[in-house]
Amino acid sequence: MRHALCLEYDGRAFCGFQAQPSGCSVQDVLERALAAIADAPVRVTGAGRTDAGVHATSQIVHFDAPVERPATAWVRGVNASLPSTASVLWCVRVAADFHARFSASARQYTYLLQNRAERPGLLHGRVGWHFVPLDVDAMRDAARHLVGTHDFSSFRAAACQARSPVKTLRALDIARHGALVRFDFNADAFLQHMVRNIVGALVEVGAGKRAAGSVADLLAAADRTRGPATFAADGLYFRGAEYDARFALPPTIRDVPAFVV
Amino acid sequence: MRHALCLEYDGRAFCGFQAQPSGCSVQDVLERALAAIADAPVRVTGAGRTDAGVHATSQIVHFDAPVERPATAWVRGVNASLPSTASVLWCVRVAADFHARFSASARQYTYLLQNRAERPGLLHGRVGWHFVPLDVDAMRDAARHLVGTHDFSSFRAAACQARSPVKTLRALDIARHGALVRFDFNADAFLQHMVRNIVGALVEVGAGKRAAGSVADLLAAADRTRGPATFAADGLYFRGAEYDARFALPPTIRDVPAFVV
Repeated sequence: MRHALCLEYDGRAFCGFQAQPSGCSVQDVLERALAAIADAPVRVTGAGRTDAGVHATSQIVHFDAPVERPATAWVRGVNASLPSTASVLWCVRVAADFHARFSASARQYTYLLQNRAERPGLLHGRVGWHFVPLDVDAMRDAARHLVGTHDFSSFRAAACQARSPVKTLRALDIARHGALVRFDFNADAFLQHMVRNIVGALVEVGAGKRAAGSVADLLAAADRTRGPATFAADGLYFRGAEYDARFALPPTIRDVPAFVV
Repeated sequence: MRHALCLEYDGRAFCGFQAQPSGCSVQDVLERALAAIADAPVRVTGAGRTDAGVHATSQIVHFDAPVERPATAWVRGVNASLPSTASVLWCVRVAADFHARFSASARQYTYLLQNRAERPGLLHGRVGWHFVPLDVDAMRDAARHLVGTHDFSSFRAAACQARSPVKTLRALDIARHGALVRFDFNADAFLQHMVRNIVGALVEVGAGKRAAGSVADLLAAADRTRGPATFAADGLYFRGAEYDARFALPPTIRDVPAFVV
């Protein structure tokens, strides 16, 4: 009985999504909580393997339930066992050929950057930070060079396990909301650290340290050693994955929290 | 040389604002950081004595600097010594008769409540929670009875040290933003737990467990034992205090973070 499940979490409380021998990952705590409900081991597969410190508004996973349980048991029962920094939002039966990772046609990430002179205090661990006022228009000019199907090796972590560095970045939108700058990414798939490395390059453009056009050269070089430093995990939010309508899932994309309008 | 200083913090990292023997309060860490810059002891007085777990977007304090230092030392120098969950936003010289607490003509608080079936995960510690869908119009009806000058004893903590239970609630605005309900309070001063106790009563109204008009009876009773339980500190944000224009301070009121519009 294959199930799809949606989970949100505060990334600071975990050593990333993927299972670790120390048991400190999101996958580890979720599998333990599901096993407590099932009275049997349960393995989960996630749509996005977020790194340590990276948050999720909507991590989609699938698992094969070894026993039948009411739907509420997979949500409220599991939440009773999960740490307070993670919460299951829904869980549904799904077709046996659904795969949280391989069925995903696109993934979305948001990076939130606090752009002011003083470092974050209230939002520590929730936002990246840059103290030089950033030129959003210049960053948008630079971002335009990255949209499309490209070899993103210049923005790929050395440890990245993806088979190919060629990905399709469908959209990269940038907007300022007061002292926060928001970067929205949509791609078929992402290389490890791709969002944080792209944000690093765009911030250099926004701060006037790099010309917008130079991002095209950086992309064309397909050489990570020419890129900027990886930006902090603090401001990165995985917003979920897109799936074919035939799976009839509840919403699989969730926006970052709207505190005020 | 009297100074006014504005500080934001994540309340989960501290045992409240007021100095404690264990040194775990906001006042303790700020005084230690100021002393490191001054090379001498420094005492601060705050506008609002927030409880453990209560956040601040703008805590205003004053202190008498025992030495002359450039303005940046009181901001960036102090931030270098503060824990990462607190950040000084500005510091200015101010008239000798300025008093962060006694000069404040009004104070503002916001309570953020996540109103959905599943408990918070991503926003754990940042928002209160109620799982029954709340009727915002009914809560507004109830709130109307509380605005004005009243004896707020029914919403006062047993340990409250205020001289008088009579306070003037200037405004109590309630708005829904998706799954978040936001309560904005403005009063000359607040009793201990007053916001959290009022939110507790309003949530009972919103959930249909108490009639809107009964909040007027509760207020008139001036009896804490008749009130609802104190709501969690998690969703409470001190947004600063108002001062006479003659003090010529930078903005002393700061909104809760706007993640999206």
